[in-house]
Amino acid sequence: MRYELHYWPTIQGRGEFVRLALEAAGADYLDVARGPEGEGQGVPAMLRFLEGPDVPHPPFAPPFLVHGQLVVGQTAAILLYLGPRLGLVAKNEAQRLWTHQLQLTIADAVAEAHDTHHPIAGSLYYEDQKPEAARRAQEFREFRVPKYLAWFESVLQRNPRGSAHLVGARLSYADLSLFQLVEGLLYAFPKAGRRALAQAPRVQALHDLVALHPRVTDYLASERRLPFSEDGIFRRYPELDA
Amino acid sequence: MRYELHYWPTIQGRGEFVRLALEAAGADYLDVARGPEGEGQGVPAMLRFLEGPDVPHPPFAPPFLVHGQLVVGQTAAILLYLGPRLGLVAKNEAQRLWTHQLQLTIADAVAEAHDTHHPIAGSLYYEDQKPEAARRAQEFREFRVPKYLAWFESVLQRNPRGSAHLVGARLSYADLSLFQLVEGLLYAFPKAGRRALAQAPRVQALHDLVALHPRVTDYLASERRLPFSEDGIFRRYPELDA
Repeated sequence: MRYELHYWPTIQGRGEFVRLALEAAGADYLDVARGPEGEGQGVPAMLRFLEGPDVPHPPFAPPFLVHGQLVVGQTAAILLYLGPRLGLVAKNEAQRLWTHQLQLTIADAVAEAHDTHHPIAGSLYYEDQKPEAARRAQEFREFRVPKYLAWFESVLQRNPRGSAHLVGARLSYADLSLFQLVEGLLYAFPKAGRRALAQAPRVQALHDLVALHPRVTDYLASERRLPFSEDGIFRRYPELDA
Repeated sequence: MRYELHYWPTIQGRGEFVRLALEAAGADYLDVARGPEGEGQGVPAMLRFLEGPDVPHPPFAPPFLVHGQLVVGQTAAILLYLGPRLGLVAKNEAQRLWTHQLQLTIADAVAEAHDTHHPIAGSLYYEDQKPEAARRAQEFREFRVPKYLAWFESVLQRNPRGSAHLVGARLSYADLSLFQLVEGLLYAFPKAGRRALAQAPRVQALHDLVALHPRVTDYLASERRLPFSEDGIFRRYPELDA
């Protein structure tokens, strides 16, 4: 049965963590809000799930996945569901839980990256919270990014199956998400991101390995991969980098 | 086998979501960092897992759970693991995923509550970010709290098994966590919290029902329940309420 991903059609955002998993697995999926409204797709199709009064399990926000009768929101929960179905997580419970724990920590880092340009309110423009953003971005660059990358570096270093992957000896959805986090940091903070990454060579190597995965390479070169932009989570505002 | 919870010993914080689940289930557990150092407990026992170079799955931060060989961090992942073992989640996959999705949304609300007093940096004091906190708290009170509570209200309203519980007709860990979120909001924002809750009568009723659960009642009246304070996630700063 085809997977239906619902997410804002013009940005990578949190939807990208799901897109990468679906693409890397070669899954049959529809990026619904990017499809034609005339065929029952587009943003209105997404809004029906968010605003329809009779949706039994309404998502709080995009992204969400529709698979048959199932509607599941929250990026990490979507990947928890997709992981075993796409062959992107180990079979035993301890490894699955560990992969999920890594994903939740990536989600925390992503939320903090978002708040560098929106430290006060998601409902306001960046332009309305620039002084606060400058302070928060400094903290993020100097302390948070190094702390997160050092932790992922230690996770790779301690993997008994080698440091090529976060969990075991095979690609997992957490690897794909860490790739995307690194991509985002390098886009938004080219100076600070590169500096922090120089201290985390295993994270850098994992990022480079994921980029070489044939299906990922194809995807990144395709029109299905939206560009980073100043409407997404990772935004390049030169005044926030240093 | 006894569960070992590791969390900062003087605050409710994120550890409280795990404590509530363990307490409501009557589980045999040890709150390690609150135990005596002379018996191998206390904060040093917790730090060994966070800082020890040979921990295979190091937690990024407390809380984390140790159960035999398993070490699992991230509040929502801990509850994902404990839920079926404590009888605090349904048996079928769709309901388990839905419960987890609810928990992740509660976690998002908790992170936003934290950032009302720390919008710039967790490494700085509240006193060093008061003007920013005032702005962020206003947004949180006026838009975010009502939005979260309205969503949980609609979830309760749509539960085909009745609005007493978030999922099905039995207590789940998401119910316990929503109770704690409401408790925290009422502590930190007595005015705005009460106002928002008046618009979410089913959430209020769930909160009151959880408080009447015999084991929860016992726990809340015991010394094991730490008080809210201005060192935790939910802080009562009158200037942030209105």
